[in-house]
Amino acid sequence: MKHFNIELLNTQYQSTVQSVIDNKTKPVGALGQLESLALQLGIIQGVNPERPHLQINKPTMLVFAADHGIAREGVSIAPSEVTAQMVANFLNGGAAINCFCRMQDIRLQVIDAGILQPINEAHPILVSQRIGAGTENFSVKAAMSKEQAERAIDWGAVIAQRHIQQGSNLLLLGEMGIGNTSSASAILAALTNQKAKQTVGAGTGINQTQLNKKIKLIDKALLRFKKRDPLSVLAQVGGFEIAQMTGAILFAAESKVPTVIDGFIAGAAALVAIKLEPNAKDYLIFAHQSAEQAHQLMLDQFAVQPLLDLGLRLGEGTGAALSLSLIQAAVAFYNEMASFESAGVTV
Amino acid sequence: MKHFNIELLNTQYQSTVQSVIDNKTKPVGALGQLESLALQLGIIQGVNPERPHLQINKPTMLVFAADHGIAREGVSIAPSEVTAQMVANFLNGGAAINCFCRMQDIRLQVIDAGILQPINEAHPILVSQRIGAGTENFSVKAAMSKEQAERAIDWGAVIAQRHIQQGSNLLLLGEMGIGNTSSASAILAALTNQKAKQTVGAGTGINQTQLNKKIKLIDKALLRFKKRDPLSVLAQVGGFEIAQMTGAILFAAESKVPTVIDGFIAGAAALVAIKLEPNAKDYLIFAHQSAEQAHQLMLDQFAVQPLLDLGLRLGEGTGAALSLSLIQAAVAFYNEMASFESAGVTV
Repeated sequence: MKHFNIELLNTQYQSTVQSVIDNKTKPVGALGQLESLALQLGIIQGVNPERPHLQINKPTMLVFAADHGIAREGVSIAPSEVTAQMVANFLNGGAAINCFCRMQDIRLQVIDAGILQPINEAHPILVSQRIGAGTENFSVKAAMSKEQAERAIDWGAVIAQRHIQQGSNLLLLGEMGIGNTSSASAILAALTNQKAKQTVGAGTGINQTQLNKKIKLIDKALLRFKKRDPLSVLAQVGGFEIAQMTGAILFAAESKVPTVIDGFIAGAAALVAIKLEPNAKDYLIFAHQSAEQAHQLMLDQFAVQPLLDLGLRLGEGTGAALSLSLIQAAVAFYNEMASFESAGVTV
Repeated sequence: MKHFNIELLNTQYQSTVQSVIDNKTKPVGALGQLESLALQLGIIQGVNPERPHLQINKPTMLVFAADHGIAREGVSIAPSEVTAQMVANFLNGGAAINCFCRMQDIRLQVIDAGILQPINEAHPILVSQRIGAGTENFSVKAAMSKEQAERAIDWGAVIAQRHIQQGSNLLLLGEMGIGNTSSASAILAALTNQKAKQTVGAGTGINQTQLNKKIKLIDKALLRFKKRDPLSVLAQVGGFEIAQMTGAILFAAESKVPTVIDGFIAGAAALVAIKLEPNAKDYLIFAHQSAEQAHQLMLDQFAVQPLLDLGLRLGEGTGAALSLSLIQAAVAFYNEMASFESAGVTV
């Protein structure tokens, strides 16, 4: 696996950035979370007296898709075939994520990280980075080998690198994969030493019987292995799309590019990323609080307050896409608002 | 005062609209508040099998500015001169609301509803609808006469009408007026039979001494008059910008045009509006939960959950402007997303 060299944020100009924000024509702090976001972007992008503006260039949504062996246990509202059907929907432009990306001019890249059957036809927004034909059923064996987990991280880094080299300085992460809330819940439980009961939710809408089964299967998986290092956890209960997101996050952080984390599943990838490389945390922007019950517990691991709280539970990167306009608003006020001095306001 | 003839929403096609939403390629309810928003817009706009699409045309931000006699008591972080200075900032394009409107192609109209000194130069985005040179100090006498309150409502209706006739079908409301959180708190207290202690907050950032004074002055005002009908309350403790917003809300509702309510001050105008005409409520979209402490109590009067919660406490319509992209997202998914049938997804 690639070694990621992620620098601690250089806070040399933090107070300069903060004073730019504080001198805008508004009471100090009155733009709430947009101010902390502008500060974060300012530090990441290294704005300074010579390079005073924030910039968002070619924001790019990476939607990683993969299938999960655990889905065979009936822990989702839909069967695994729906993963491929929804990928086809992405390619045809008909899914929610398509609408939100079109609306805001976000480039959309769909990555087949390992759905059951490969898509046979080439498509301009599809890239194939298959680690396998879905993971194993993690309730009975490791979801993937450690070598697969490492390869997935590397390939996630590769697709992030491609878009960053093409000029994107903001990556947004989303996913599709029937069964992947189970995987995310298992990762959260394993990395925080919780029982599944604390980390499991209704996903996109399962019933109580399915929920109980999901808890049981995850607890069973957690008994199956002892090691709690992030790579072992990823291999044991992760997913190909989750591992590739982890790689994309790490590469972006190494490149000083912020990543917008969608919801619960992308959050699990981010959790693995910061357990591998704690410095990655400061490059993350959390888009929304999802309706998934355990998402709060997950967000607590990052000690963050996400931008939106709309009761979304769809995935695909939809929350991340919706948060872009708020990120752009933070950039706009930072770059364009008058200062008290320039506007002649006497507060 | 003009009589407003606001129809109850026609729910004839409500179930049709709901089934369009439920048949999109996503689990039922998975787009959370965007789904309720699409339903509300669908019913307001009367989408039906023959006219199946939602539309947002020429979204227009109306920022009403006025001064408040109560400001002489020192209950704000800034003196009344700042109202005019900020209006000048709006006209020069340097305020937060300018940035957010430019970013999203929102037309901006600034209305002088009665700041202390009129703006001497004409400006393409400024319209003068002055009811007076600021209100009276409501802690000692009525802020305005009933005749002024009625005229303000009428003139608010006129500016709404102009923009609706020019093709806008979504109005966003914001305000500027040093002292106007005091007025909004007093309105909320009077219309909900609360003490000022329950309805007062720190505004844009006053200290505890100022806060105590604000509470005392509002309680004093509430003892000054007995009538609690909305027009009396508006005249006694309201503001010219608040009264004009009430008129704009009522005219828009009469025209079946939804209004996006910014924060605490615009919310007070909306509260007066629904007390005058309860049917107006269904035409309101609440943009954000502000950091103002009493905003929750106000939102409870409408039984709504606003779209954003970013800790904003700026006013100007900033929260309303930021919510537009979510409203457009609701429109986009409703109009453009594939159905299960059209996408061949088997859920």
